[in-house]
Amino acid sequence: MEKFTITTTNDQYDVLIDYGLRHQLDTLCRSILEGRKKALIISDTKVYPLYGEEVKKSLARLLPVAHVTVPNGERAKSLEVYRDLLTTCIEEELDRNSIIIALGGGVIGDIAGFTAATYMRGIPFIQVPTTLLAQDSSVGGKTGINHPLGKNLIGAFHQPSAVVYDIDMLQTLSDKEWLSGFAEMMKHAYIQDPNYLAWLKEHVNTLDDIKKPSIRSSIRRSMKIKATIVEKDEKEAGIRAFLNFGHTLGHALEKVSGYGELTHGEAVACGMLFAMRLSNTLQLSTWDIEEEKAWFQAIGYPVDIVFQYEPEALIEAMRLDKKRTSKGLTFVLLKKAGEPMIQTVKETIVRQLLQRKEASS
Amino acid sequence: MEKFTITTTNDQYDVLIDYGLRHQLDTLCRSILEGRKKALIISDTKVYPLYGEEVKKSLARLLPVAHVTVPNGERAKSLEVYRDLLTTCIEEELDRNSIIIALGGGVIGDIAGFTAATYMRGIPFIQVPTTLLAQDSSVGGKTGINHPLGKNLIGAFHQPSAVVYDIDMLQTLSDKEWLSGFAEMMKHAYIQDPNYLAWLKEHVNTLDDIKKPSIRSSIRRSMKIKATIVEKDEKEAGIRAFLNFGHTLGHALEKVSGYGELTHGEAVACGMLFAMRLSNTLQLSTWDIEEEKAWFQAIGYPVDIVFQYEPEALIEAMRLDKKRTSKGLTFVLLKKAGEPMIQTVKETIVRQLLQRKEASS
Repeated sequence: MEKFTITTTNDQYDVLIDYGLRHQLDTLCRSILEGRKKALIISDTKVYPLYGEEVKKSLARLLPVAHVTVPNGERAKSLEVYRDLLTTCIEEELDRNSIIIALGGGVIGDIAGFTAATYMRGIPFIQVPTTLLAQDSSVGGKTGINHPLGKNLIGAFHQPSAVVYDIDMLQTLSDKEWLSGFAEMMKHAYIQDPNYLAWLKEHVNTLDDIKKPSIRSSIRRSMKIKATIVEKDEKEAGIRAFLNFGHTLGHALEKVSGYGELTHGEAVACGMLFAMRLSNTLQLSTWDIEEEKAWFQAIGYPVDIVFQYEPEALIEAMRLDKKRTSKGLTFVLLKKAGEPMIQTVKETIVRQLLQRKEASS
Repeated sequence: MEKFTITTTNDQYDVLIDYGLRHQLDTLCRSILEGRKKALIISDTKVYPLYGEEVKKSLARLLPVAHVTVPNGERAKSLEVYRDLLTTCIEEELDRNSIIIALGGGVIGDIAGFTAATYMRGIPFIQVPTTLLAQDSSVGGKTGINHPLGKNLIGAFHQPSAVVYDIDMLQTLSDKEWLSGFAEMMKHAYIQDPNYLAWLKEHVNTLDDIKKPSIRSSIRRSMKIKATIVEKDEKEAGIRAFLNFGHTLGHALEKVSGYGELTHGEAVACGMLFAMRLSNTLQLSTWDIEEEKAWFQAIGYPVDIVFQYEPEALIEAMRLDKKRTSKGLTFVLLKKAGEPMIQTVKETIVRQLLQRKEASS
């Protein structure tokens, strides 16, 4: 089993990665669970039928367990679902000595984490991620839901008590979900580790490559990069913002295309390529865009989809980004692999680049 | 001007107390406000017309200011009002470099604080309390809203960047509001400081006594007691729970009577007297209940109102309290002034005492 510890300002928690961990939650998390009144598994209608009862069984050896499911997908991150989850917490008589288990992908981690962050002013929770994307989102304590006017605008920083990543559960992912998660792994390599990036470029050139057992060893590498960054900057006052590489345009693409059309990772992949083009345009870098784009396309990312949307609509959406300032749109740019930087870019420059498909090819 | 600093795990903030401070927010909070994008004043329909424009004027000397009002009273602490406040934050284009100003009583502090705690995963806020009750609630970082099934069940710990208490604004309080706030001051004396309690018993024996200028000097004493406790126990893992003296039954009374019928302080006053009776019953103390009750009644608290409600309804409401455990109802009891203790009490004992009016008189 891979194991490492994340230390934040007030807390410390373990990340465990291996096959079959869902059957051993009682032994793996005994010190966290023992003596608690109750555990509530929050999952979704897709994941719970696959793994819910196994997780429940392993927890039930230690404490009473209830479960609740929400609709699968981004639409679950609504104020209405949040309210219903709080109602469940009350009806199941959870107290401050109870614990929430987030069983699912990033959406479940976000909404179950936000419920844990705000029920009775905060109760503990454990992340049990089931997707490749959640290798990224399960670490770092960001929780949240969407407002009708923008994604993740409501939320809190609330660190999990543990992250238990059973990579067995990845086997039921769809192709789109593999792609979505791998984009964040690419991101970790781009912003932090040129050697890791070179390894990925050598070993992953098709969708099937992502699914190979060998790639799972790099999950730890990615999670460790994420962990190192959030340890240094728990509340995104500084370097944590580098993790938003690809996300300024990525979030806008998700919004303008209608949530669910593009996966988060697909949108972030488009955003990363765009950020590299922008870095070149601003003469900060000399990326071979042709080459980078070819890699993204070979794996299966829809890198040209950005040109299907109105530039103005994308810019309008980017203006609502949490990372915006009043002087333009804020991007994470990349001088080279491992050298990210934050820069506010004038809208006119962004607009030009969104219009010129030819410039990217 | 009275001033003291509160130090919490990650933060430090000043509490300022004096007449007329609402006109000087720019100079008093310059280091907090300067360079920020925008301030949003969150107030209610009763307070804003009285003091809102004055507060706005003083802030506007430093940064752009917007304002929004919510309905006056406990009903504002709903998920619906919370959602509307988030919408306002987005529409006013607040970013993480913006700040919320909570102008009002405890309800405004709670909901504006929770909005600040969760908008974009947390932005800063300043407490500008306008009631006597808010001398208590503005310190300590508890924020929250109500769920239809229970009070304050949704919330977060989020420390303000400053508490600016302009005691000029107390002059527009109603009698009920004076009474409500003074109960928490009595509470501070009961749980922490026998000398302060003796002083209050000597100097405050009618409603009018509360309104005298001399009592305002004790506001600092109360706020300091609260501050000392929350400094030691920011997230209510231990001694902070003593501040719940009178609150187990108090919250239940507020709920069963229908929020708004009894003020928070009236309910807490009834709860404190009940907790002292319970302490006697459990042979932990030898309070002269007759004498204590006479003091409460002379000031104007409706101490017998507890017997107008069904004991079962009150017990049912207490079961939902955040402080409950599985073994009974949790009370803060009082061996003597300054010696509080937490104890779980069997429901049968509580039930008996709720039924026996004669025992209290």
